[in-house]
Amino acid sequence: MRLSLFILAVLVAPIVVAAEPLPSWQPGATRSALLNFIEQVTEPGSVAYRPPAERIAVFDHDGTLIIEQPLLVQMVFVHERVRELAPAHPQWAELAPFAAVLAGDNEVLADMGFRGTASLVNAAQAGISQAEFRAAVSRFLDQGRHPRFKVRYPQLVYQPILELIALLKASDFRVFIVSSGGIEFIRGLSEAVYGVPREQVVGSVMKYELREDGEALEVWRKNGFQSLNAGPFKVLNIDRHIGRRPLLAVGNSDGDLEMLAYTQAAPGSLAVLLRHDDAQREYAYADDSVRVLPVAAARDWLVVSMKKDFRQVFANEDGS
Amino acid sequence: MRLSLFILAVLVAPIVVAAEPLPSWQPGATRSALLNFIEQVTEPGSVAYRPPAERIAVFDHDGTLIIEQPLLVQMVFVHERVRELAPAHPQWAELAPFAAVLAGDNEVLADMGFRGTASLVNAAQAGISQAEFRAAVSRFLDQGRHPRFKVRYPQLVYQPILELIALLKASDFRVFIVSSGGIEFIRGLSEAVYGVPREQVVGSVMKYELREDGEALEVWRKNGFQSLNAGPFKVLNIDRHIGRRPLLAVGNSDGDLEMLAYTQAAPGSLAVLLRHDDAQREYAYADDSVRVLPVAAARDWLVVSMKKDFRQVFANEDGS
Repeated sequence: MRLSLFILAVLVAPIVVAAEPLPSWQPGATRSALLNFIEQVTEPGSVAYRPPAERIAVFDHDGTLIIEQPLLVQMVFVHERVRELAPAHPQWAELAPFAAVLAGDNEVLADMGFRGTASLVNAAQAGISQAEFRAAVSRFLDQGRHPRFKVRYPQLVYQPILELIALLKASDFRVFIVSSGGIEFIRGLSEAVYGVPREQVVGSVMKYELREDGEALEVWRKNGFQSLNAGPFKVLNIDRHIGRRPLLAVGNSDGDLEMLAYTQAAPGSLAVLLRHDDAQREYAYADDSVRVLPVAAARDWLVVSMKKDFRQVFANEDGS
Repeated sequence: MRLSLFILAVLVAPIVVAAEPLPSWQPGATRSALLNFIEQVTEPGSVAYRPPAERIAVFDHDGTLIIEQPLLVQMVFVHERVRELAPAHPQWAELAPFAAVLAGDNEVLADMGFRGTASLVNAAQAGISQAEFRAAVSRFLDQGRHPRFKVRYPQLVYQPILELIALLKASDFRVFIVSSGGIEFIRGLSEAVYGVPREQVVGSVMKYELREDGEALEVWRKNGFQSLNAGPFKVLNIDRHIGRRPLLAVGNSDGDLEMLAYTQAAPGSLAVLLRHDDAQREYAYADDSVRVLPVAAARDWLVVSMKKDFRQVFANEDGS
């Protein structure tokens, strides 16, 4: 096998070398730091070398892999589902927060916060089988369009991050998505859009129950959460699900602080903070992350500017 | 890449073909059913063909991968830890269930059941960092010896099951261990002994908390469980952790009933029940599984007899 793999490497090497790595990243210090990290981890003999089994990379989802403005994509989905289901629930027209959704009043909803809108999340995402939920997510991702960019949401993923994921996978990393978003919602995108297997998604999880339909057992979704995967819980769930401290973590907000700090403690690791600072091509709200920015500066994490470091922002900008 | 892989296949094929698959299984209907299942799933054009992304296999742990008599291996570890820690806890000499452990009275402990011995589990496995716990598991697996077979526990894993796992991996399956045992205890064996990555272990999970030690964040283990992965909860945690219905499930007891039934509902899937019926080479307690045996018979699951179907029981029986 060793000889055969050698032959394979020789045959493939010219193709791999010919392609420029991370083409959607601007040449410069940021791109070099990413390439240098991967080289150090994968180069036998390097002090930072790690065998493939230990190469774990974790990526936040909303704002790190996909657009999250003006609303979280999953919240757009929840609103769509509420509108779809509304004819069967006439009382919603007068009932907060449903009435605000039906009136399209996103400002009122934003003021309510996560707790205030929990009933929307339950109404849109519970009381159905996991299979029905997956089908609803799939329909939404096929049909929903972003209000500003007028394209489907799977096109509003960040091309430079997709390239980084592909390069990590080619370097024998296992790439995980670790998000406060719903695990099954993200799985609707993970394989087809990000190239991340479903089992490598760690997210918030609603309560489940097992129902028997004749001989067949089905997983059903219930109101409420068994796991809210935010802040410190990202670290606890990384330990539970992955069982190993990551070598690379990429995030963009205060909710990623603990995950980045936990990753940083591994020798040879890299913590990456993506700053949304490009109002023209995307949105500029990086300064909202008041907890993580000073820590990133103090601990010398790699801070990525979308404006300066991204040559191209979204995948398929040519409309392909 | 396609051509290169073809060349690799041609170079390697003679070696692969030369080796008999599943050599520790007796030739016959059981072994043929396993080989036929793998062939049907992997053969392009077969009605049961599934692309690699969908090839998920789940294995129970205790009694399916490793010996579980006369005591669960993890319970032996818990008792060892209690004996180690006892000098710092003189009150344990008079306190149930600790006194029974210190007196070596396994019958009293067995009568107490899981609830009665919860304080042992907490004393042995909580109040320490995850890193300390991993080190303790590793020491135990290096040193502990089975009372009857007088060898280390990692040698008392079932060679035919190891061969099945290796064949599944070579057939582009991802293999998961799904156990009511502790997730971190099983991870002490998963990579080195079973060839299963740490992130492909799903088990019971104690409560965790995040502690800050200077800049470094560490996961600490607390009393009690956040997840008890038994019976129907195996299915719910398969859905949470893997996000896909398995094609193959292998178990040996009533606690695997729901996992086997859930798997069976996938087209082209296989549910396998291992019967411990070989008192001479291992133990005979298959008939304790009163719930799962009639279901396996009624639904035509593949029932494996250790006595008839295993040519060799344990790995390294030659003492290597």
